[in-house]
This record gives sequence, C-alpha cells and structure tokens, in this order.
Amino acid sequence: MPVHDTIRPIRWVDDHLELLDQRLLPEQERRIHCADYVAVTDAIRNMVVRGAPAIGIAAAYGVVLAARALAIDDRQALECALEPALQRLAESRPTAVNLVWALDRMRRCLAAAGADPVSALLGEANAIASEDLAANRRMGELGAGIFQERCAAVLTHCNTGSLATAGFGTALGVIRQGFADGTISRVYAGETRPWLQGARLTAWELARDGIPVTVLADSAAALLMRQGGVRWVIVGADRVTANGDVVNKIGTYGLALAARAHGVGFMVVAPSSTVDMQLADGDRVTIEYRDDAEVLSVRGQRIAADGASGWNPVFDVTPAALVSVLVTERGVIEKPDRDGMARLFADAGEPVRNVR
Amino acid sequence: MPVHDTIRPIRWVDDHLELLDQRLLPEQERRIHCADYVAVTDAIRNMVVRGAPAIGIAAAYGVVLAARALAIDDRQALECALEPALQRLAESRPTAVNLVWALDRMRRCLAAAGADPVSALLGEANAIASEDLAANRRMGELGAGIFQERCAAVLTHCNTGSLATAGFGTALGVIRQGFADGTISRVYAGETRPWLQGARLTAWELARDGIPVTVLADSAAALLMRQGGVRWVIVGADRVTANGDVVNKIGTYGLALAARAHGVGFMVVAPSSTVDMQLADGDRVTIEYRDDAEVLSVRGQRIAADGASGWNPVFDVTPAALVSVLVTERGVIEKPDRDGMARLFADAGEPVRNVR
Repeated sequence: MPVHDTIRPIRWVDDHLELLDQRLLPEQERRIHCADYVAVTDAIRNMVVRGAPAIGIAAAYGVVLAARALAIDDRQALECALEPALQRLAESRPTAVNLVWALDRMRRCLAAAGADPVSALLGEANAIASEDLAANRRMGELGAGIFQERCAAVLTHCNTGSLATAGFGTALGVIRQGFADGTISRVYAGETRPWLQGARLTAWELARDGIPVTVLADSAAALLMRQGGVRWVIVGADRVTANGDVVNKIGTYGLALAARAHGVGFMVVAPSSTVDMQLADGDRVTIEYRDDAEVLSVRGQRIAADGASGWNPVFDVTPAALVSVLVTERGVIEKPDRDGMARLFADAGEPVRNVR
Repeated sequence: MPVHDTIRPIRWVDDHLELLDQRLLPEQERRIHCADYVAVTDAIRNMVVRGAPAIGIAAAYGVVLAARALAIDDRQALECALEPALQRLAESRPTAVNLVWALDRMRRCLAAAGADPVSALLGEANAIASEDLAANRRMGELGAGIFQERCAAVLTHCNTGSLATAGFGTALGVIRQGFADGTISRVYAGETRPWLQGARLTAWELARDGIPVTVLADSAAALLMRQGGVRWVIVGADRVTANGDVVNKIGTYGLALAARAHGVGFMVVAPSSTVDMQLADGDRVTIEYRDDAEVLSVRGQRIAADGASGWNPVFDVTPAALVSVLVTERGVIEKPDRDGMARLFADAGEPVRNVR
C-alpha cells in the first residue's frame, strides 16, 4: 500500500465483511465482523460505517451476504427472495444517495447474472469498491495538480478520507496527493461539531498516515485565514446541484464566506455520483436536521443547561459563486456554474479536463 | 429584583465573599465562600469567577478581605502591608485589564482613606460593583432602543451576562432589555468551543431568567443567517481599539463576516472601561493562545486523535468596518471609526448619545 494511504475501513475477508468501527475511533481500533446482511444493516444505521461512498460499498457487500445465505440456485427465484434484504439495506440510512445507487447497481448485476449469481454479486461489490478508490486517486491527481506553491498549509472540514470511502478519500485524497507531491505541508482540521468527525476521524487518519494535522475549533477558521495561515480550504460534498451549489456538512458555508473574504481558495472534491443534475440549485435542497441532543451534549455527556433547546442542521448550502474549483474524477471546473456543470456532465463518456 | 434579571454571581455577605462556581454550571449551583484574599485569588485563577468585569469586582472584595485580616490602624502602614496581596491578586489573571483597573482604584481609595480604611475599601468595592451594574443597565436601554421590530430572534456568542459582570450583563443586558420590551423573542446561543460558555453559561442564565434560548454549533451560524433566522448578532468585547476594531472571544470575527454577507446587524456592547484609546487598531493586539488541550478535549474528556496538535487562539479581531453599532454606557456609535471613537471618548464627562 502506498505511503500516506494505509487505511481501509471496509474489508471482504474470506466469507464475511469486516468494518472498522468508527464510533470507537480514535480511542479504540476495533473491526466488526458482519457474517450476514442484518449485521451490515445495523452497522450502517448505527454509524459503525459512515460517509456516503463507504455506506454504498458496505451495503453492496451486504447484498452478497444476503444472497449467499438464501442459497437459491434459480436466478429469478433469488431476485425475488432477495428483495426484502435490499429494502432493509436501503432503509438503513434513507438520506444517503450512494446507498440507493449501489443497491440499484447490485440489482442490475443480479438481473444479468449467469450460473453463479453469488459470485457475480461479489464481483460487482468489489468493482464498486475499486472504482471508488480509482475515482479518489484520479481526483487526488487532478486536485493536487492545481497547487502552485510548495509546503503550504490547508484547512479541511469533517471527514472525507479513507474512512468515508473505499480508501484514499475525496478532499483528503487531494490532500494526501498534495502532501506526497510536497505542495501541502500541514493540514488544519476543524473539529466539526457536533459529531467531531474532524477531531476524531480526520485527525486519526492523517496522524496514522504521517501527515501533520492540527485541530482547531470550527469558529477559529476565520482568524486562521486572516493571519494567512492557509492557502486553500478543501472540502467534500454530499450533493452538488446542476448550477454548482454545494450541499455539505454544516459549517462549510461559513468557511466559504471567510475564504472569499481573505482571497483563500475554496476547493470542493466530489465524485460524479455526488452530482445531482436533476436539482437546479441548492435552494431546492431540504436541509436535514438531526436530534437536538447532539448539540446539547458531547459524546453522550450533557453540556448545555436544562431548559435550552437545540438547533441541529446537518448540512448547509454553499453557493457556486463561492467555489473556486470543483474537482470530480471526470475533470476540474474552475468557478463552477450552470454551463460548466452541463459541459462536464452532459458527456458521460471520456473524462474531460479543465472545463472553464 | 426585576423580572429576567435574577442572577448575581458575586455577593458580599456579612464578612465574606460568596462566588457562584462557574466551573460547575450548569450541572451544579454551588457558591464558594471566600473568607480571605488567597481564596479570592484562587477563585479567579481557577475560573470560579470569569468575565472581565466580574473578575475586577471579585478582586476588589479580595482587597477588603486582605486589609481586614491585617488589622493595622495606621493607613500608611496598611498601604505598605497590603501591597503583596494587591500583587498576588493582580497576577491571578494577568491578561484581564479590568483586574488591574479595579486594583488601582482600590489603591487610590486607600491612599485617600480616613480613620476607618477597611470600611472605605468595602465602600469602594461596593461602588465598583454598583457602577458596573448601572453601566450594564444603561447599555441595555441604549442598545435595545435601536431595535425597530417586535419579536425578532437574535444570535449571541460566549457569555456576556450576569455571570460575567456584577449583573444584567453587556450584550446579554441588551438582550434582557429587548426581551422585556418585546423586541426580542428568542436568543440563539453559539455553544462557543472550546470552553462552551454559550452552551453552559448563557443557556443556563437565559433559561433561568425565562428567556427562550436555543443552542447551536458555532459553525451553524452562517446557515441560520442565510435562512433569515436572526436580525441581529449581539456580542461583547474584551477590548475595543481607537479605530473601533473589536477584540473578542474566538469566533466573533466569523460571525461578523457572515452577518455582513446577509445584511444582518452586528452590535458590540462594551463598557467604556473596555475601550483602549492608546491602541490604534486591532492589528496591534497580540492574540492570546491557551493550552492546546482545550481544543483536543471537551470538559476533560479527550476527543482528538493522538498525534494531532491543537491550535487554540482565545480571541480574534473584528475590523470596525464590520460593526454596525457599538454600544457603551456613554452612548452609541453607528458604524464606528476613528473619528466617532474620538468624539465619544475625548469627553470623559457627560454621556453622549448617538454619535455618528
């Protein structure tokens, strides 16, 4: 495995799936053994595995486990018998687009399968994982190719790394590549309240892979930029709309506003599976809210006074006008807008580079 | 005591000082009994009492306790014998300007005292406390007088309330007055990592005083403004420079940038003792850093991965150009700049209102 890229959260081992339990990081590194699809469903629901690409991959292997347990030779009978497991996996995290996409792909694979459908499904799950890794490596090259200077510090948010994908990561993939190239020397990681993905997961992943990482309170980012501490903010995306607006973890929008105010570059790194050309702009995205208890406590310990309510939006929307560069595995769009998005995503064939 | 204003963190009771232990809030309400000045020094150092005005008041009562314990009738002998206690109190939080200011005032009081110097010192400590409360009430009236609409929500940061002052508070004083007037209906409180003054102290104080309060992750503020959720951001200040730049708790600057981007008003509420006309602008302020452990943990529980470093600036600087209104007990400055500051603070006599 290459230097600075040693972490794989999802492993198919012999006849079962092993998932690195992300709820226990960074204190404990424990792998959960999933011998059947119900265990995979629970692992997704309970956040053992998180990050949209990683969830899709885990679910694909869940389909393999479900099919094998059914032990039905007839393909059509298997398709029918498998449907309840597919449904249950789909419902484990209803808002993750990649989950539905991966399950649809497994369904199509089974429909076209020959004599050994379980082997075909395992092959497809492996393909989903390896294609994700390849897309991340490609985005790493494209994104890191943009950096002009050597040894600059960058700021990231949430966790977009190996832990959220098959490996390497999206925004953290660009950072890994930039560090290997010598253009990035240090990563500032916003702690990412309320779930602390930055302090817990990004810091663990980068420290593990030998990349210097410094954690800061999310609210300290504007001062860091004012002091000239970073040249780029590099983030992932949960969804990119047809005009280039970016839906991402809460806090991303404030970082984009501060980056613009200080002339700091704002790079969004997202595979094309994240792009939703059916949605005109970010104002049409329904913001998801989670349990108020998340902001009223930290890792189960209550911090807020009784009598206070909480406001806990999971995502915010960053207008395309604040994005300097959108990096996908198909190519890079500088100053993304409706035209640039249409050019890159109208052609589903060969990769396009440096669309402006 | 008026409605919505029931909290007094510092009480002189018979012959000793009682301090509400802010380290234990909101879980426990416990008062610490300080019978001598060493106990007061420890209470300041250990954050039993915090907030610049509150620290100054506590230290003033510490001088009373020290003078009484010495039991020296001769004023000049007492002045000499008291100096070590004054030094020790001054060193309990070396960066708090109000602390030095309050101790100087106690020194001057003693130098002018007659036959009963301990009574004179107690009178001066009481005066420092009551003048602080009066300044807060005046700022409350001036600040709340600016609100045009009824029943709007506002956003605040850190704790600037009764807990940080003799009572009523600075930014929270304006909010208390606005709530009493019916112009403010709800307060959003940023949790204020790393010390969580918002989630712990502001939420406790407002819930206790019957003012609806909602806690949010600091990074969610920009989305709240984008959604039109608040009309004003109202904060305090640790120092205001001669051009109107504002030094305040880390995170204030990012809120000011987001407020400007959304046409949300940005109000700073600070007594004139916070204004430093000797400092030309905020770029000349040395930013204070505290122990990295504060951002790598939450209330003593480690959250960040081993191998990560932390970056923990305590304050940031908000340029005057981002401030809509500066409220002091002497009057209000809209769009503060060097001229407006000079007009309000050149005249140390009568209060001036609505300097533009």
